[in-house]
Amino acid sequence: MGVFILGEPLLMDIRSNVYLEDDTLVLIDRRRLPEEIRPHCCHDCEEVARAIEDMVVQGAGDIAITAGYGLYLAARQGRALDPAAARLKATRPTGWHLAAFLDKTRQRVASSEEPPAEVILAAVNQAIERQNQRSFLTGRWGATRLSDGDTILTHCFAGPGLLQMLRLARDEGKRVGVVATETRPYLQGARLTAWSVSQLDLDVTLITDNMAAYVMFKGMVNKVFTAADRVAMDGWAANKVGTYQLAIAAAYHRLPFYVLGYGGPDPQTPAGRDIPIEERDPLEVLTFRGQRITGPAVKGYYPAFDLTPPELVAEIITDRGVFAPARIGEYFSSQRKN
Amino acid sequence: MGVFILGEPLLMDIRSNVYLEDDTLVLIDRRRLPEEIRPHCCHDCEEVARAIEDMVVQGAGDIAITAGYGLYLAARQGRALDPAAARLKATRPTGWHLAAFLDKTRQRVASSEEPPAEVILAAVNQAIERQNQRSFLTGRWGATRLSDGDTILTHCFAGPGLLQMLRLARDEGKRVGVVATETRPYLQGARLTAWSVSQLDLDVTLITDNMAAYVMFKGMVNKVFTAADRVAMDGWAANKVGTYQLAIAAAYHRLPFYVLGYGGPDPQTPAGRDIPIEERDPLEVLTFRGQRITGPAVKGYYPAFDLTPPELVAEIITDRGVFAPARIGEYFSSQRKN
Repeated sequence: MGVFILGEPLLMDIRSNVYLEDDTLVLIDRRRLPEEIRPHCCHDCEEVARAIEDMVVQGAGDIAITAGYGLYLAARQGRALDPAAARLKATRPTGWHLAAFLDKTRQRVASSEEPPAEVILAAVNQAIERQNQRSFLTGRWGATRLSDGDTILTHCFAGPGLLQMLRLARDEGKRVGVVATETRPYLQGARLTAWSVSQLDLDVTLITDNMAAYVMFKGMVNKVFTAADRVAMDGWAANKVGTYQLAIAAAYHRLPFYVLGYGGPDPQTPAGRDIPIEERDPLEVLTFRGQRITGPAVKGYYPAFDLTPPELVAEIITDRGVFAPARIGEYFSSQRKN
Repeated sequence: MGVFILGEPLLMDIRSNVYLEDDTLVLIDRRRLPEEIRPHCCHDCEEVARAIEDMVVQGAGDIAITAGYGLYLAARQGRALDPAAARLKATRPTGWHLAAFLDKTRQRVASSEEPPAEVILAAVNQAIERQNQRSFLTGRWGATRLSDGDTILTHCFAGPGLLQMLRLARDEGKRVGVVATETRPYLQGARLTAWSVSQLDLDVTLITDNMAAYVMFKGMVNKVFTAADRVAMDGWAANKVGTYQLAIAAAYHRLPFYVLGYGGPDPQTPAGRDIPIEERDPLEVLTFRGQRITGPAVKGYYPAFDLTPPELVAEIITDRGVFAPARIGEYFSSQRKN
């Protein structure tokens, strides 16, 4: 059974929606939220890899932790860990946490005399603690950027840090409203963000992705917050496709655009151009819940992410503080200010 | 039976999808295209008004013609024409053709000694001829802006003028590709545009609305074309929501943004701020084909159109030629150059 925390949005803590039951990994299927809380069970590493590919779970940090559980299942079942890790790493290329976490965990296993499964499970649990801590601290820094009366625009699901930020601002007495873009084709904005924000008892309005600039034009929002699946050392940020378009629209309207950067940039990625942008099956654009929405001769194109240049970003908000995009490299020399 | 023209996209000519069968108005339900060619029958003016409100038909010119048929049915059934015209005018406020056409037709009826139904039907048929002529001429001017190797981005369904433009360019030997945004929430881009373009045997790719800027960033498109439901005399253009966002993204990438302006600006609308932007039922954003896509406490916002300022538009392409947005008022002093 997952760790459900009373009065907290389901997606505030990964432990409530990604958890082990004996040697089965249970994922609450995010594609079905909030309509139903449907458990999706993975019995081995391959099933975990497919669940990640099929977006049963999403978000760079949560994907890494889920993959960690996949590696754990491989170890429990006495499988070779190198091909298992390679399979898991190949699922989603854009976020950097996945490969980084699996590599680090493999190294730990190699240098430990403990049974691999135990080492891996300890690493996963540590990653969960670290992620929760980072979300809380990122949210705390984010809340310093919110003022009473703000209405923020957000895209896709910017993770628990966004929810922490909004909760903290609420508890400080700041009235903050949220406008969420639905985020086609998977509708994470509608299904995850808008729902989670409503669970915090905040005012939240859903729009389609193409309404964002008009909402800015009308003065209905005054700040934009998104997450990033990967921040490069030069300040470019990869995030859910549509983020770049919002950042351009925000710049045109002179609204500050903030990126929740959680654990900072990827030190192994010098520049935005080094980030691989995942392209998914075009069928996911050509259909909606299994129904084709266009003619048979029409092709589809589905880049799952895009890249936002530093000049469009006001600040990158991390667990260690807030950085101008051009100075994000200083993250690694910064002290944790908690 | 509608006038189907062999080898022509269904939506190239309104006569193939909006037509009388005795005293029933048949509309091919655009919300069901291209999945099925489903006739939607209207037996009186009120049913026509509701069909317009419910988007069984769309596009400013086609809405005006459909409303004309509604007024015809009212006349045939001996109803008072003033309340019938008022009911029809109230359906969709943003396009100007609807009110302009109904007002003009009412005046014709008043100044004619012919039976009202005959006067109205003659006016409708004349409007259809004029619209087809305007679409052809607009398409011809538009084709002068296309070069071999272009790939254009388009949004919503920019009408028969877009199809005429693409067909003409094709017949001139210019290879032109199309990328269509799906256009949430009604998916006109997927259902109408992408399908119609594919019927012209052109290469067409569907994307979600939030991918447009990334497609520009990748250099996959080099020009943008949309229509306008109303152009004001100061060059501001109202069109399907999302148009403004695309225009901003095009300006950021220094891509020319063209507006198909068909019959020119509305002389009764001096400025963009005078254009009423229709706001539709939020439920249309909160649901997809009847299924709710977010939590119960989430509100929705659905502006059906937005406004694009002249500084973001390269040229407005009309049946009388091509105008810089700031000089669109010259439309009325221009000669028809055909």
